[in-house]
Amino acid sequence: MNGNRFGRLFQFTTYGESHGEAMGVTVSGCPAGVELDEETIQRDLDRRKPGQSMITTSRGEPDKVKLNSGTQDGYTTGTPIGMVIQNKDARSGKYEPFVTAPRPSHGDFTYSAKFGTRNWGGGGRSSARETVNWVAAGAVAKQVLAASEYDVEIKAHVNQIGDIEAPDVSFEEILEHSEENEVRCAHPETAEKMRDRIDEYQKAGDSIGGSIYFEAHGVPRGLGAPRFDSFPSRLGRAMFSIPATTAFEFGLGKDAREWTGHDRNEDWQFDEDGDPTPVGNKHGGLQGGITTGQPIWGEATWHAPTSIPKEQTTVDWETGEEKQVQVVGRHDPVLPPRAVPVVEAMLYVTVLDFMLLGGRINPERIDDRPGEYDTDYHPRSPANMDEE
Amino acid sequence: MNGNRFGRLFQFTTYGESHGEAMGVTVSGCPAGVELDEETIQRDLDRRKPGQSMITTSRGEPDKVKLNSGTQDGYTTGTPIGMVIQNKDARSGKYEPFVTAPRPSHGDFTYSAKFGTRNWGGGGRSSARETVNWVAAGAVAKQVLAASEYDVEIKAHVNQIGDIEAPDVSFEEILEHSEENEVRCAHPETAEKMRDRIDEYQKAGDSIGGSIYFEAHGVPRGLGAPRFDSFPSRLGRAMFSIPATTAFEFGLGKDAREWTGHDRNEDWQFDEDGDPTPVGNKHGGLQGGITTGQPIWGEATWHAPTSIPKEQTTVDWETGEEKQVQVVGRHDPVLPPRAVPVVEAMLYVTVLDFMLLGGRINPERIDDRPGEYDTDYHPRSPANMDEE
Amino acid sequence: MNGNRFGRLFQFTTYGESHGEAMGVTVSGCPAGVELDEETIQRDLDRRKPGQSMITTSRGEPDKVKLNSGTQDGYTTGTPIGMVIQNKDARSGKYEPFVTAPRPSHGDFTYSAKFGTRNWGGGGRSSARETVNWVAAGAVAKQVLAASEYDVEIKAHVNQIGDIEAPDVSFEEILEHSEENEVRCAHPETAEKMRDRIDEYQKAGDSIGGSIYFEAHGVPRGLGAPRFDSFPSRLGRAMFSIPATTAFEFGLGKDAREWTGHDRNEDWQFDEDGDPTPVGNKHGGLQGGITTGQPIWGEATWHAPTSIPKEQTTVDWETGEEKQVQVVGRHDPVLPPRAVPVVEAMLYVTVLDFMLLGGRINPERIDDRPGEYDTDYHPRSPANMDEE
Amino acid sequence: MNGNRFGRLFQFTTYGESHGEAMGVTVSGCPAGVELDEETIQRDLDRRKPGQSMITTSRGEPDKVKLNSGTQDGYTTGTPIGMVIQNKDARSGKYEPFVTAPRPSHGDFTYSAKFGTRNWGGGGRSSARETVNWVAAGAVAKQVLAASEYDVEIKAHVNQIGDIEAPDVSFEEILEHSEENEVRCAHPETAEKMRDRIDEYQKAGDSIGGSIYFEAHGVPRGLGAPRFDSFPSRLGRAMFSIPATTAFEFGLGKDAREWTGHDRNEDWQFDEDGDPTPVGNKHGGLQGGITTGQPIWGEATWHAPTSIPKEQTTVDWETGEEKQVQVVGRHDPVLPPRAVPVVEAMLYVTVLDFMLLGGRINPERIDDRPGEYDTDYHPRSPANMDEE
Repeated sequence: MNGNRFGRLFQFTTYGESHGEAMGVTVSGCPAGVELDEETIQRDLDRRKPGQSMITTSRGEPDKVKLNSGTQDGYTTGTPIGMVIQNKDARSGKYEPFVTAPRPSHGDFTYSAKFGTRNWGGGGRSSARETVNWVAAGAVAKQVLAASEYDVEIKAHVNQIGDIEAPDVSFEEILEHSEENEVRCAHPETAEKMRDRIDEYQKAGDSIGGSIYFEAHGVPRGLGAPRFDSFPSRLGRAMFSIPATTAFEFGLGKDAREWTGHDRNEDWQFDEDGDPTPVGNKHGGLQGGITTGQPIWGEATWHAPTSIPKEQTTVDWETGEEKQVQVVGRHDPVLPPRAVPVVEAMLYVTVLDFMLLGGRINPERIDDRPGEYDTDYHPRSPANMDEE
Repeated sequence: MNGNRFGRLFQFTTYGESHGEAMGVTVSGCPAGVELDEETIQRDLDRRKPGQSMITTSRGEPDKVKLNSGTQDGYTTGTPIGMVIQNKDARSGKYEPFVTAPRPSHGDFTYSAKFGTRNWGGGGRSSARETVNWVAAGAVAKQVLAASEYDVEIKAHVNQIGDIEAPDVSFEEILEHSEENEVRCAHPETAEKMRDRIDEYQKAGDSIGGSIYFEAHGVPRGLGAPRFDSFPSRLGRAMFSIPATTAFEFGLGKDAREWTGHDRNEDWQFDEDGDPTPVGNKHGGLQGGITTGQPIWGEATWHAPTSIPKEQTTVDWETGEEKQVQVVGRHDPVLPPRAVPVVEAMLYVTVLDFMLLGGRINPERIDDRPGEYDTDYHPRSPANMDEE
Repeated sequence: MNGNRFGRLFQFTTYGESHGEAMGVTVSGCPAGVELDEETIQRDLDRRKPGQSMITTSRGEPDKVKLNSGTQDGYTTGTPIGMVIQNKDARSGKYEPFVTAPRPSHGDFTYSAKFGTRNWGGGGRSSARETVNWVAAGAVAKQVLAASEYDVEIKAHVNQIGDIEAPDVSFEEILEHSEENEVRCAHPETAEKMRDRIDEYQKAGDSIGGSIYFEAHGVPRGLGAPRFDSFPSRLGRAMFSIPATTAFEFGLGKDAREWTGHDRNEDWQFDEDGDPTPVGNKHGGLQGGITTGQPIWGEATWHAPTSIPKEQTTVDWETGEEKQVQVVGRHDPVLPPRAVPVVEAMLYVTVLDFMLLGGRINPERIDDRPGEYDTDYHPRSPANMDEE
Repeated sequence: MNGNRFGRLFQFTTYGESHGEAMGVTVSGCPAGVELDEETIQRDLDRRKPGQSMITTSRGEPDKVKLNSGTQDGYTTGTPIGMVIQNKDARSGKYEPFVTAPRPSHGDFTYSAKFGTRNWGGGGRSSARETVNWVAAGAVAKQVLAASEYDVEIKAHVNQIGDIEAPDVSFEEILEHSEENEVRCAHPETAEKMRDRIDEYQKAGDSIGGSIYFEAHGVPRGLGAPRFDSFPSRLGRAMFSIPATTAFEFGLGKDAREWTGHDRNEDWQFDEDGDPTPVGNKHGGLQGGITTGQPIWGEATWHAPTSIPKEQTTVDWETGEEKQVQVVGRHDPVLPPRAVPVVEAMLYVTVLDFMLLGGRINPERIDDRPGEYDTDYHPRSPANMDEE
């Protein structure tokens, strides 16, 4: 209701503004017994953090995560996991021209309309900086899945920037190449072109839109409740929560409107194990809103960042006058490259949440601990008592 | 969690299978004092019901709503509104070939995988028949909005069927023309072409995909909580809950990836009342996930119905053999024409829910009742006591 | 939020007013494969229904349940279970003196203050008639538990009416005797006295309070999330939802304030299986808010029914005058005897919900179906495919 | 679901274990424009913190709150409020005898049964230390109420310790005296006796139970949704969430079972303003589960702390043997004195949440800011635009 919570059995709750003291996230519903430490979470945060390259904001945030609760000796305890990421490089002075004047197409106007506040300080809560929390939560979800008996693998890459579109690539290529370049496009030659195009816009004081393609492999069949908690319904909510998303689709997506039923439908056959299997995966891993066990694939689009140095016009509600402005803070010229880990995080959280809800993973504990912490180690402990 | 509930302060909960006894919906959180009767709700149900024309299923369902609770003398009481729509024309016999064999690309396989049931009887819960409940809930939401001081108006039309695309039309044209033809396309000439194309596929035993364009006018600014309860996040969830949706976008949507920030951004100016107003509405009424007060517009896509008479191959898990099948039940050859009232219903519910959450409409009562039921009529009643 | 929903994974949503058309309840989250039909549910409704004896309201409601969805061939399908109970004997005329005057200590005043409505018609939503829905939901929960591998048994009885207090009885006595007499007290001699005392008050045009004692056996250890979703927290919410409850306690309850830690604490010992077991159950089956596996026991209190024929004073907000009134409708002179099935229903729902959340029962299906509906019957069906 | 979240529109989410790094709480749904700083919150934390006197644990926790987000220049921004309280004096060594042996009647056994972990470190999440988060959230709620146009005042005091019972005191006496002594009993002479009795038990290596009485004044009428979200239902959940609560009652509570309807019912009269008013408040401010506008009053009971130095027997699941143990950590000998601020905090949160849900307080902003932050200051800002 309040916009800062996602998930049901596996749930995370966030706080933090772009130029506030710190960002924070509480993960609730993580099973006990999963290996987890700050280093593991940090690895994912490092992929999202600012200042990684020329095409990201130059803001110098180390984004070091502090694990305040929920683990003991490197394993989760089943109780809430509290994490804090301190803000180090907030410079609100830069935004002063906008204290009483909304930046064009930014959230300044709508936040002011909603909360009655004069929205300054790096965009406050509306800043994409907040997604650092989501990536931390996603890292936890990924660890839980890794500790389970399932082999879920999720990866995304940037498949279009402006008019530069990447050709189709295999999941293996995405796994191999998407982290190799700063654009996070798994097709190296296209990545080069994207990089050039971004530079071009950035030099012109402008920004550009783009999109991300993702695949989720190993998600078991039968996940998703009919209708309002269908898998696409939850995933749609996740994707449209990411700042600046304007479109989401799965499988044939928007193109499906041009396909006939006969061409799109996929026959059933028995596979080598004698199990019914669809011939193909135009359905994107989802039928009737529920997973088929085939890879889930889809795409989301981000509009160009609204904060640009190019001159624009706005109004000042203090002076009552129009004025020319330039948004000269430290901003990304394009969003998808840094949104890749965010998309992956939301997929990990969504998949895990459905697996817990569907009884695929024990919601209380995954006995992944070695040595004397192994529940089998103490046959008389309450963890090993029979239930009548 | 269980897939049959939508909304937060204004919430509806549904039940019912295609070939079960009855469909039912409970609306919770409707303010007291709103004019409501079965006729009002029936008008919207009639727009969605089957058998309206040659391009919809011939199933003969009168879809008569029965109002079981929540009103008194034609006005809501603030307590839950229970509605039942009896199923009259269920003929499960037709589906027998599929009791142990999944229809291609239908929910048969995934439902069986999830619930362990052999999914027969018109698709059970996966059938789009279930959306009759949503339209009933949407009719209630529309009445609440009509009783409020706001002038919210929502309308959708079919803007593409297969490769037939309608030109852009104004909101006034949508209001005027979308209900004039059985395709529900607001551009009459295109509607003709769409109709012909649908006929063509239907005669060939096939089906076709399509899309719907919508606009919501009069939605006040400032609605939507940042992030996971942003307006697009909730609307995305709503749209992907509708059976067979494969894509959703708002504003420039998927095209936004080809726009630069400078071209997409909209300057601010003062309007004639001296209020800040954006120059244009490429943003689709939403900035930072919150409404700007400009019309909200967007588009959703449906894949072609999967139930088609054309021959397809499936597997029978009783015999262990592949077999050729034809789905010869009563099915729609295309979904968007009947999905228009469903899209509108979900928009009405979503908008109302946000207006209640944002304090724009009193969640307990709207004093819309005349005569002696008017709370002003009895100045000494508890409804009129001052609060200290 | 809206007061008509209870439970999380196993959830029910209700509607209906005392003198409305019908009562209704939707059960969401019931696993597939559980035997369920109208007769099973009816048995529990019959225990709660009015007109069973001289000490209950004479209102003639057959309370016949109609199962509208969620089952197929006598087994649940995993989809929502919609039930309707028609109201047959509503006579609103009786309440006319109270249309503009609140009955003393009834919900008339507060409902009017909240919803701005003039609350007539048998108390509308505030009537305990609404609990018929809860008993229907409880009957479903009981069936799910019966189909599980757990042997949960829950029973309550009336342990005090006015100043007549029953001596302590064993669980076996409660099981054997509580349904034998109309007071539902498991101690037959005390039941006689209670019955006489109720008669006495009823003849005097008055009513009387009382309390219920319950036990829940076979609930597995480890249920309940720390704190706001602890077992007592959820059970407390359940009990205080029942109309006219004024107190709830478990274990030593209110008396615990007079016990020292040493006297109340229970040592641990190994039982015959070598498992740690507490010496005694003063803790009421709950430690740290989580079940210990020992029987859960507690008590709740109901104040006397407020609707009494004895003369009382109220005010009429139409005339602005005080007036003497008698509430001469058909009312129970005491609540606990009919609340026993309601308490049991809420316990069954609460226990099942925790067992689903704790992964003790598969949330999607319990394979309890015989013959060809048995999932084992079709080894190639999707219900039997291995997960990778 | 996960036990660490309370509230609906005004919601808080917690983390932290007794001997972990830090405690943390995120408040979501706090309106913008409310004066709030660390000092204000600290005042309430200081009332709950350990080491205040001889009758509380000697653990030396400064309990300093750090405000990480959600405010700007001393006023709330409407976005989530993140707070962290560092743990400074955790000494887990003390608990080593209990790593493989559950303390009698503590949560050790049930936590181990649930999470499969060996529960050491000061009781981990089960420790009452966690309520520091609740008090921080309650301090925020209190500030919101103070900024509203309502005059809500809530106060509790300890009314019984062991067999020492305080006589009835007025609300004024509670306000004046409850914080004067370390027992937090508003009747000074009884406080002395309680103090002596506690000393006595403490010296004997034992502990004792007790209870708290509370009143909430100024809560407007009409709050609470019928049934599962009734005011007592939510308050019951709140009270049973506090560690070691075993009973809760409001109004006549448990005694109500001995009252007849006629004696308990309260006539209605017109007050001096011509408004209907009940004669008396035996109903405890709640009728039909909804507030009447009269003070809400009730009582809750806590069992004696289970951690006592007196010798007890437990079992060690490592050695498989019984052993004699003494819990010699730093523990409170009685809970109610320190639970008073916790009870008050939960009442403030519950009342505010209902006021937001009932439309009594604007959920987005309370314009309490002075000077140039006052929304009236900028008539052209989006916060002041008319809605059509």
